[in-house]
Amino acid sequence: MGSSSGQKPRRLEDLVDKLASGSLSHSRLEKELGNANEAALVRRLYLERLTGASLSSVASTILDFQELYGRNIENPIGAVQVPVGIAGPLRINGDYARGDFYIPLATTEGALVASVNRGAKAITLSGGARAKVIKDGMTRAPLLWTPSVYEAHRLAMWVEDRIEDLRSVVAGVTRHGRLQHIYPYIIGNLVWLRLSFSTGDAMGMNMVTISSDRICRYIEENYDGDAKCIALSGNMCTDKKPAAINKILGRGKYVVAEAIIKGEVVKNVLKTTPQNINLVNVTKNLLGSAAAGSHSFNAHFANIIAAIFIATGQDAAQVVESSMGYTWTEVRGEDLYISVTLPSLEVGTVGGGTRLPTQRELLALLGVAGGGDPPGSNALKLAEIIASAVLAGELNLLSAIAAGQLARAHELLGRGGLKIS
Amino acid sequence: MGSSSGQKPRRLEDLVDKLASGSLSHSRLEKELGNANEAALVRRLYLERLTGASLSSVASTILDFQELYGRNIENPIGAVQVPVGIAGPLRINGDYARGDFYIPLATTEGALVASVNRGAKAITLSGGARAKVIKDGMTRAPLLWTPSVYEAHRLAMWVEDRIEDLRSVVAGVTRHGRLQHIYPYIIGNLVWLRLSFSTGDAMGMNMVTISSDRICRYIEENYDGDAKCIALSGNMCTDKKPAAINKILGRGKYVVAEAIIKGEVVKNVLKTTPQNINLVNVTKNLLGSAAAGSHSFNAHFANIIAAIFIATGQDAAQVVESSMGYTWTEVRGEDLYISVTLPSLEVGTVGGGTRLPTQRELLALLGVAGGGDPPGSNALKLAEIIASAVLAGELNLLSAIAAGQLARAHELLGRGGLKIS
Amino acid sequence: MGSSSGQKPRRLEDLVDKLASGSLSHSRLEKELGNANEAALVRRLYLERLTGASLSSVASTILDFQELYGRNIENPIGAVQVPVGIAGPLRINGDYARGDFYIPLATTEGALVASVNRGAKAITLSGGARAKVIKDGMTRAPLLWTPSVYEAHRLAMWVEDRIEDLRSVVAGVTRHGRLQHIYPYIIGNLVWLRLSFSTGDAMGMNMVTISSDRICRYIEENYDGDAKCIALSGNMCTDKKPAAINKILGRGKYVVAEAIIKGEVVKNVLKTTPQNINLVNVTKNLLGSAAAGSHSFNAHFANIIAAIFIATGQDAAQVVESSMGYTWTEVRGEDLYISVTLPSLEVGTVGGGTRLPTQRELLALLGVAGGGDPPGSNALKLAEIIASAVLAGELNLLSAIAAGQLARAHELLGRGGLKIS
Amino acid sequence: MGSSSGQKPRRLEDLVDKLASGSLSHSRLEKELGNANEAALVRRLYLERLTGASLSSVASTILDFQELYGRNIENPIGAVQVPVGIAGPLRINGDYARGDFYIPLATTEGALVASVNRGAKAITLSGGARAKVIKDGMTRAPLLWTPSVYEAHRLAMWVEDRIEDLRSVVAGVTRHGRLQHIYPYIIGNLVWLRLSFSTGDAMGMNMVTISSDRICRYIEENYDGDAKCIALSGNMCTDKKPAAINKILGRGKYVVAEAIIKGEVVKNVLKTTPQNINLVNVTKNLLGSAAAGSHSFNAHFANIIAAIFIATGQDAAQVVESSMGYTWTEVRGEDLYISVTLPSLEVGTVGGGTRLPTQRELLALLGVAGGGDPPGSNALKLAEIIASAVLAGELNLLSAIAAGQLARAHELLGRGGLKIS
Repeated sequence: MGSSSGQKPRRLEDLVDKLASGSLSHSRLEKELGNANEAALVRRLYLERLTGASLSSVASTILDFQELYGRNIENPIGAVQVPVGIAGPLRINGDYARGDFYIPLATTEGALVASVNRGAKAITLSGGARAKVIKDGMTRAPLLWTPSVYEAHRLAMWVEDRIEDLRSVVAGVTRHGRLQHIYPYIIGNLVWLRLSFSTGDAMGMNMVTISSDRICRYIEENYDGDAKCIALSGNMCTDKKPAAINKILGRGKYVVAEAIIKGEVVKNVLKTTPQNINLVNVTKNLLGSAAAGSHSFNAHFANIIAAIFIATGQDAAQVVESSMGYTWTEVRGEDLYISVTLPSLEVGTVGGGTRLPTQRELLALLGVAGGGDPPGSNALKLAEIIASAVLAGELNLLSAIAAGQLARAHELLGRGGLKIS
Repeated sequence: MGSSSGQKPRRLEDLVDKLASGSLSHSRLEKELGNANEAALVRRLYLERLTGASLSSVASTILDFQELYGRNIENPIGAVQVPVGIAGPLRINGDYARGDFYIPLATTEGALVASVNRGAKAITLSGGARAKVIKDGMTRAPLLWTPSVYEAHRLAMWVEDRIEDLRSVVAGVTRHGRLQHIYPYIIGNLVWLRLSFSTGDAMGMNMVTISSDRICRYIEENYDGDAKCIALSGNMCTDKKPAAINKILGRGKYVVAEAIIKGEVVKNVLKTTPQNINLVNVTKNLLGSAAAGSHSFNAHFANIIAAIFIATGQDAAQVVESSMGYTWTEVRGEDLYISVTLPSLEVGTVGGGTRLPTQRELLALLGVAGGGDPPGSNALKLAEIIASAVLAGELNLLSAIAAGQLARAHELLGRGGLKIS
Repeated sequence: MGSSSGQKPRRLEDLVDKLASGSLSHSRLEKELGNANEAALVRRLYLERLTGASLSSVASTILDFQELYGRNIENPIGAVQVPVGIAGPLRINGDYARGDFYIPLATTEGALVASVNRGAKAITLSGGARAKVIKDGMTRAPLLWTPSVYEAHRLAMWVEDRIEDLRSVVAGVTRHGRLQHIYPYIIGNLVWLRLSFSTGDAMGMNMVTISSDRICRYIEENYDGDAKCIALSGNMCTDKKPAAINKILGRGKYVVAEAIIKGEVVKNVLKTTPQNINLVNVTKNLLGSAAAGSHSFNAHFANIIAAIFIATGQDAAQVVESSMGYTWTEVRGEDLYISVTLPSLEVGTVGGGTRLPTQRELLALLGVAGGGDPPGSNALKLAEIIASAVLAGELNLLSAIAAGQLARAHELLGRGGLKIS
Repeated sequence: MGSSSGQKPRRLEDLVDKLASGSLSHSRLEKELGNANEAALVRRLYLERLTGASLSSVASTILDFQELYGRNIENPIGAVQVPVGIAGPLRINGDYARGDFYIPLATTEGALVASVNRGAKAITLSGGARAKVIKDGMTRAPLLWTPSVYEAHRLAMWVEDRIEDLRSVVAGVTRHGRLQHIYPYIIGNLVWLRLSFSTGDAMGMNMVTISSDRICRYIEENYDGDAKCIALSGNMCTDKKPAAINKILGRGKYVVAEAIIKGEVVKNVLKTTPQNINLVNVTKNLLGSAAAGSHSFNAHFANIIAAIFIATGQDAAQVVESSMGYTWTEVRGEDLYISVTLPSLEVGTVGGGTRLPTQRELLALLGVAGGGDPPGSNALKLAEIIASAVLAGELNLLSAIAAGQLARAHELLGRGGLKIS
């Protein structure tokens, strides 16, 4: 019947009327009804009446808004359903991820799962991917105003001298986060303090933001000079924007995955040659990205990152910087060396969307649901898995390009190669 | 009971055994069973047995994989459910979007919907947002090899001279796409052809990729010199990577939304002043992003873009470049002028994930489900709506920062302002 | 005796006293004396007295400030002398530069001339460099304010519609410059108009700036909407700053030089192999620059550009963007293909410092002093020569790195190449 | 008479003949003659005969090539003379530079000296500029190859553990340089080691490069794993290319200069208002550079840097990164706060071109010729002076734009400001 609800009790209809007349606002509906699921129903009824659109599919959800309201969502009306496919098995030899994994990918783009799947096959047939987290720290960079460069410099030194005090401030706020180090940055009279924290199994933006706020307050209260926090985030963090600083200093997990693909696998599974894959990587991923003025030197990290992020309850907006990185290839004898480097992969296995039912199941599928033992190990394992899946996706796309396009151009740069004519 | 299926008929168990033994691959399961929904069930059973994880929530989906298989997903196992909240009403005075809209946001990050909601309130109370699409064209940039710069230059000129022929080639492939123009780029002996297409109501990557392939073939077959396509995408497109070229030349919709927020609304709803919002925008969004080496000069475009993209079936990996852009503010007398500029917003209302049930309902909620009349108008309308929602989110976050942080620093730069002491 | 002048007539001493007492300012000295060379002398006397420093070497100049004052310099005190060495012969097969050239390099950095010289030898022994100018246009981007995106867009369209009128405006200002095209760029309510001009044999910033001013005035006077020019240069030009827009759209001359270096020359002259040079180019120039967040993918274009710019009277501050660009190498059978691409090389043979005596002689050495026949051909020839010299310098440095460092690592990625151990 | 020499003894003519016939190469001429000044003469004679160009002005030099040959130049033919003007007095209150300075600017671009001069006047009338060096360290980043990310990571840790050993290695090479710290950067199996050194009064590239070479050798000899240096400079240094890493981490001197310009000075000297200067800075320098995809957020740092670099014997190619930086303005009551931040200003007062006669005199004019007491203090003083001169140039250009353009647009954003119409 195209409507999102069967029976509509009088009480709910009254509320719809009130929403329509403006005498009740959406943000007060939960309080009015005392039940977030009913509130979602009323909103749907209102929207259906207003727009003529049916919301019956959106209504068909297992989500319990009593639990999610105010933690994960406001003004809920239901859920969107994103199909999930699996790629694998993908063999990973990491410091934390060890074994064969099936990678859950939530996507609506046909061929993406198949792409990662074929890459995983080639990697696994070649003995698997290695993966390693090089750095681990979540950052926030509040921005402080001072009257002059002298004050700016004095403030920066003052803060660096008091790092132990600031660690104590942070310890009073969170059990899981620890202030690692501070990178001060000065432009004229302004100071950014790029604060880096370990955050255990959480991605950690919330604890990091709260900790940063406390640090700012501590500074304003204790610094004997003139300094005011004018933005808790001053964009040198850098959250949800592409930025060189994240590439250079790292954010979240700085992780590398690599594999040596056997020559016969390149030939039989990927239908091309190490030379051609290498040529595509250098011309497209390095030179092409250089020409485009891009921060990101890869083919499609973002496809795999986005699909896993949605599947596992990560913050989808962080695909922006989590997908920055480099693909690097070398022809090694008959084989192909390939690596992917992701300097700012921001992931967690607790908090945010990770506690939602479908997302949590898909984390469990990877063996990383909830907090790890020791703490932090689940998030590190997830980072290794994601990097390995990105490796699979990247290997496959480069191969497809090399096979499809280069097939017609065989012998292009070969022994009797072409000359300027 | 923690398992994704109640009864497990013998036949399905047999298939699970075959998957486990390796005698059957996941990618052949649909063909084997003749039913994609059953294949998803078998996969779940297999994965549950293998990992011990339950997939019952993932199994609880309205999705019909018979319909989606091969178009939107491979190796399906079910769906992930992402909560959807609404922000609004948001009044928009666009060329296509006109009226009051409720914005569906699929997110697991608490406070995001509330943030956009408050921004929408401030905008609507001030008379609404204006929105305008400045440019519209989807791009793909194949990469061709020639032996020398002479050949590279000759090829570029040859291609530009034959644009009408190439338009005919494209016309033979797609009804909806039209080749607009070609921007050739030369590095040494290599040539990128950045091809730009109008794509109607589709985001258009598929038709653009197919058309580009035909163009490459046409060139290889007809060009009288030496030219080989070595990558159908040479990264100057630029798809799913942040890139200056997209900012400078545009990709998808180049769209602006703006509003003048009345002084009293800034005060009563946003709890701050135009001056303070402006100060945060200049120091954080402009100078902070500059210092970070970022391509993106805003606070959190990506949050809103990601949430709407997931809700409405857009390609979530394109959040990367779709969220690039500028926030600009001016103090105008008592009021605040604010605009957001998104040079490469890639959206569509047909194709991809837009046909899935929940996603299509949420497009319908915005009045943009399916093809528009005239063709292309729905995608343009959606672009205006998204830009306006981004405006709301940006206005609110800047205000929150200004109020929270600057409250303590009132009179900071005021009349009797501070001096270098 | 360490003083810059032998006899100091009373009149000059009086002026020194006046400068010292503040009753005369430096900027009025020329008018007071009626002779710029005497003014330079008085300034030197004053500065020598004030600081105790001798300026006798600075005084030893052939420059006639009567001629230069107000055109090339203000408040002159003499000249700095920069040693000039020559590299060559360098064989060039360009569209304009044809033959063997000796490249004048003004530098104080030991080994630079030798570096270009060895590169030139390798190129010349291999048959010479090819060079080609792909694009030619100098730009200026005034910034206009309008009240809204609607006005911004209307203004942009209005301007594009009136390009013929604007060409007439420009024709009234300059004989040598012609308005080629306009690229409007909109952020919110602001409009940049990136105006591109052909400028004949001049680098052209002056004529372009004056023309842009007239265009802005024309717009302000004739546009029926609300638009104000708030900056004659809005930094999208982009002059004297590194910028992706110059790489992508070009500025000044977009020029490529290339050569195929014979295998035996690589071995005997450059003491390395094509493979090793290629490896250094890919890892250092492409991947290293990518990691550094650089716009420039080369080893040391700037060294050669700066030395030729100073020698030939170019604007030394434009080394910044003129030195942006790409080095690209390919192993072709036994030989090495190498190219350099400089998208924004800003040069001229008339105007600015090109008329000074030493600079003009060094332009004459290259056969490009003054205006070309046809007009513009001298500047194009100079661009080809500079690109070819850059090619020589780049080839040599890459070879030196490859030989010095890679010598110890021979067989690094060779046949029996290394594996992950 | 148009020839560079009066009498041409037979012996010299013979050598010219030999050069012409190819039986003698230019690079052996000094050895053949035993006198570098005569060699320069022979080269000129040869070139004059070959090209018909006169080199008499180039010949008119005080430079003694006997002294410069092999240290500053090869294949010398004479000198180029660049006019020098002075701007000032500029009052500076730095940590090292204290007092009133006359800034020597070597340039051929009319109006540049006048521009800095007017800016200096406004600053000095307002009490002078403050200047401060925030960081000081010259960098080189060799690139090492290892077989895998495991080896790459192990190497990076090994190197960091042995920093004291590496400091000893450096101490054996140079008295003036000290290894400060090491920043390792990993992409896949590759490792860049960004080595930072203090370099006293020298700019330091030579000692830093030699030290880096020794460090690479030490690693290759002592590291127990598999690591090869494939490029002594891996472009993450970053030398003579614009790069975000230099902005973010600093290179050479990270220096700030600032001033508060009194309202009356803005009005009477600069002919505009603090508000208009601020508007130009925000729209042009911040938003315009953002739109251009630039690393540099200023108006014309490069003009001043290039002119002082040439005047004082700095490495002119380093204008590229030395001129990167930010201009920041604030309206403070009636006054204007303005600062310039230069994160990678590379300067020295010993070595390179600083020992040449004219260059050394101009260093002496600033009181910074040769080594400082204590060592390093002259280079720091020079950095403060340059930053202050850049401040003057920037202040003046912004004012000129604000006055010229904004004069016509007064009241633009004023009280009764414009609305979207």
